[in-house]
Amino acid sequence: MRAVRSDLPDMAADVLVRVRAARPRVHSITNAVAQAFTANVLLAFGAIPSMTISSDEIGSFVERADALLVNLGTFDAERRAATDIAIRHAVTKGMPWVLDPVLIDRSPPRADYARAIAKRGPAVIRLNAAEFETLAKSASDDGAVIRYAGEREVAIALTGAADLVTDGHHQRRIGNGHEWMTLVTAMGCAESAMVAACLAVEKDAVLAAASALLALGIAGELAAQRARGPGSFAAEILDALHGLDKAALTSRARAS
Amino acid sequence: MRAVRSDLPDMAADVLVRVRAARPRVHSITNAVAQAFTANVLLAFGAIPSMTISSDEIGSFVERADALLVNLGTFDAERRAATDIAIRHAVTKGMPWVLDPVLIDRSPPRADYARAIAKRGPAVIRLNAAEFETLAKSASDDGAVIRYAGEREVAIALTGAADLVTDGHHQRRIGNGHEWMTLVTAMGCAESAMVAACLAVEKDAVLAAASALLALGIAGELAAQRARGPGSFAAEILDALHGLDKAALTSRARAS
Amino acid sequence: MRAVRSDLPDMAADVLVRVRAARPRVHSITNAVAQAFTANVLLAFGAIPSMTISSDEIGSFVERADALLVNLGTFDAERRAATDIAIRHAVTKGMPWVLDPVLIDRSPPRADYARAIAKRGPAVIRLNAAEFETLAKSASDDGAVIRYAGEREVAIALTGAADLVTDGHHQRRIGNGHEWMTLVTAMGCAESAMVAACLAVEKDAVLAAASALLALGIAGELAAQRARGPGSFAAEILDALHGLDKAALTSRARAS
Repeated sequence: MRAVRSDLPDMAADVLVRVRAARPRVHSITNAVAQAFTANVLLAFGAIPSMTISSDEIGSFVERADALLVNLGTFDAERRAATDIAIRHAVTKGMPWVLDPVLIDRSPPRADYARAIAKRGPAVIRLNAAEFETLAKSASDDGAVIRYAGEREVAIALTGAADLVTDGHHQRRIGNGHEWMTLVTAMGCAESAMVAACLAVEKDAVLAAASALLALGIAGELAAQRARGPGSFAAEILDALHGLDKAALTSRARAS
Repeated sequence: MRAVRSDLPDMAADVLVRVRAARPRVHSITNAVAQAFTANVLLAFGAIPSMTISSDEIGSFVERADALLVNLGTFDAERRAATDIAIRHAVTKGMPWVLDPVLIDRSPPRADYARAIAKRGPAVIRLNAAEFETLAKSASDDGAVIRYAGEREVAIALTGAADLVTDGHHQRRIGNGHEWMTLVTAMGCAESAMVAACLAVEKDAVLAAASALLALGIAGELAAQRARGPGSFAAEILDALHGLDKAALTSRARAS
Repeated sequence: MRAVRSDLPDMAADVLVRVRAARPRVHSITNAVAQAFTANVLLAFGAIPSMTISSDEIGSFVERADALLVNLGTFDAERRAATDIAIRHAVTKGMPWVLDPVLIDRSPPRADYARAIAKRGPAVIRLNAAEFETLAKSASDDGAVIRYAGEREVAIALTGAADLVTDGHHQRRIGNGHEWMTLVTAMGCAESAMVAACLAVEKDAVLAAASALLALGIAGELAAQRARGPGSFAAEILDALHGLDKAALTSRARAS
C-alpha cells in the first residue's frame, strides 16, 4: 500500500495546518466512556471540544460550533432527543456532521436508529467492517462499500487493519496505525471526532476523513515507538498528535 | 503472608492465559467516573468491554456478553432499571456476574439497594471493609466474612491492605499491591471488572477472584517501580497488566 | 508579578499541609467529561472525591462531605434537581461550596441558571474572563471583578494567563501555570475542585482559592519540564501535585 507519489500526505498536512489555524469547535455527542479521551484528542489535534448532551442547551452549542459528531456509543431516550435537535441545527446551518455507529452489530435497536439517522445527511460515516455490514445489511468488501457510498451520497470511512475512504467516486486507502490503538478505549470515537474537525476546514469529505485517519494512524506509530504498553501509549498518542508535522506525515504515510 | 508453596500463582497464570485466549466480553454497568479506566483495564488484561446503561439495549449487550459487572457507583432510577434487566438476562443465561457495592457506607439508600440485588445470585461480591460492614450489618473480621459467604453462597472478595477471598469453605489471601492504587480513581471498580473477566473463563469463583486480585496487585507493584506519582502510575499499571506473565506472578506473589 | 516577599507561598504551603492531614471529602457535581480527571486531581492533592449526581442519594453524600463543587459542565433537569438538593444541604450545614459556571458564554439557558444559583451563597466562583462577562453582564477588567465580588459578598477566582482572586476587599494575583493546561480537558474543573478542598480547611476564601490556583499553576510548570506534549503532561501534573512541597511553592511562586 506504500505509494510514495500519493498526494495525500501533502494535502493532509495542509488540512492539519488549517485545523490548527482555525481551531474549529467540534460539538461531540458521545458516550461517557469516550468523552474525556475524545476531548483530549481534539485539543491535541488543535480543535475545541464541547460535549453537552442536554436537550435544553445542545442547540445553543451546535449553533456556535463548526462541526458535529454523533457517536451512538450510548443509546437512550435523552440522547436520542438531543441528537435529533443537534442534527436539525447542523443541517439547517449547513454544518458538516459525522456519524459513528459504534457497536451497532451488538444491538439491534441501536442499528435501527443508526439506519434512520444515516438518512439525515452526514458528510461522513466512520465505522468498522462489522458495523458497516450491520448498517448496510451487506458485505463489507471494497465494492460493496464504494457502492453504498455512491448510492447514499455519503463518504464512508471504513477503518481496520487498512482503511478505505470513499464517496463512491474517489477512494483513499491508508495503511498506517498500530495494534495498540485497539487497546485504548474510545480510539475510534476520537478518530471520528478528528474527522469532524477536518470537515470544519475542508469541504471535500474524502480528503477530510482521509487526513484525519492518516494523522491518527501516524501518531499511533510514533507513539508506539515510545510507549511500553497501552497505558503509556494513550498518553504518547496525544503527544504525537500535538507534535505532528508535515515531515512525519510525508515520510511515514502508507497511503494512496 | 508470603507462602512460597502456594498453588495460586500458577493457577492465576493459567487463568490469565485463558482470558487472553478467550477475549471474554464483559458488560460493565459502572459510573461515568470509572468507565474509561475500567474499559482500559479490561482491554489491557485481554478482555473486551461494553458499557451501555440504556434500558433500551442493555439486554442485547448482556445477551452477547460472557460476564457482567454491576457497580453501584451511581444510583439513579435509569441505572436501577438497566441493572434489573441486565441481571435478569445474566441469571437466565447462567452468566456469572459480579457485584461491586461502591461506597454504600456513604449512602443508606444505595446500601438498601445493594442488599436487595445481593440476593439475586452474584458469583462474587468485591468490596472493602467499610462496604462489607454496611452490606452485612456485621463486623468485617475474617470469621464474619467467611460466615457471610458460606450462608449466602457467594464468594466475597474483601480488598484492603491484604485481600481475603472466600466462599465460606475455601480461603485465598493476597498481600500484593501498592498504596498508589488508592490514589487512582476507579481502581477498585476496574478490579471488579477483572474479576468478571476471570469468571468468564473459570467457574471456581474463589480462584477467579483471587486471580484477578493477584494480577492487579502485582501489576501495581511493577507499575510503582517505574512511576513517579499517581498520574504516571495509572498509565504504568495498564502497561504492566498488558505485559504480565507467569514469571512475574510466581516470583512476586505474596499469597496463600 | 514576581513578588518575592509575598506571604502567599508560605500560607499556601500551610493550606496544602492541612489538606493532606485532613483528607477532606469533596463532593463534586461535574460533567462526565471531567469526572475522572477531577477525581484524580483531588486524590493527588490529598482530598477524597465523591461524584454521584443522583437525586436519590446526593443528600447523603453531601451530608458526609466537607466541601461541595458545583460545576455546570452539563445542564439537564436531573442535574439541576441534584444540584438544588446538594446546595440546600451545604447551606444548611454551613459547608463551603464552589461554583464553576463552565462555558456559560456558549449557552444562554446555562447562563441564566448560573446567575440564579450564584445567589445561593457560594464561597468562591471560579471562572474565566468570558464566563465572568456572561455571569456579571459586565466587563472583566480588575475593577469590575473586584466590584462584583464586593457587592455579591463572594470570592471570585478569575483564571487566565494571570489569575486574580478577590473578595472585593483583598486581592491575590498568581502568574504561574503553563499553556498545556489549556490542552487537557477538565483542567479548570479540577482546579475548582481543588479550591473546594482548600475551603474545607481554610475559611478565608481568598486564601483558599489562591492556594489552590498557586499549587496547580506550579504543578503545571513542573509537569511541563518533564512532559513532551499534552498527553504526558496530564499524567505529570498529577505526579507533580502529589509531590508538591513548600520548597517548590516558595521558589517558583510568581504571586502577590
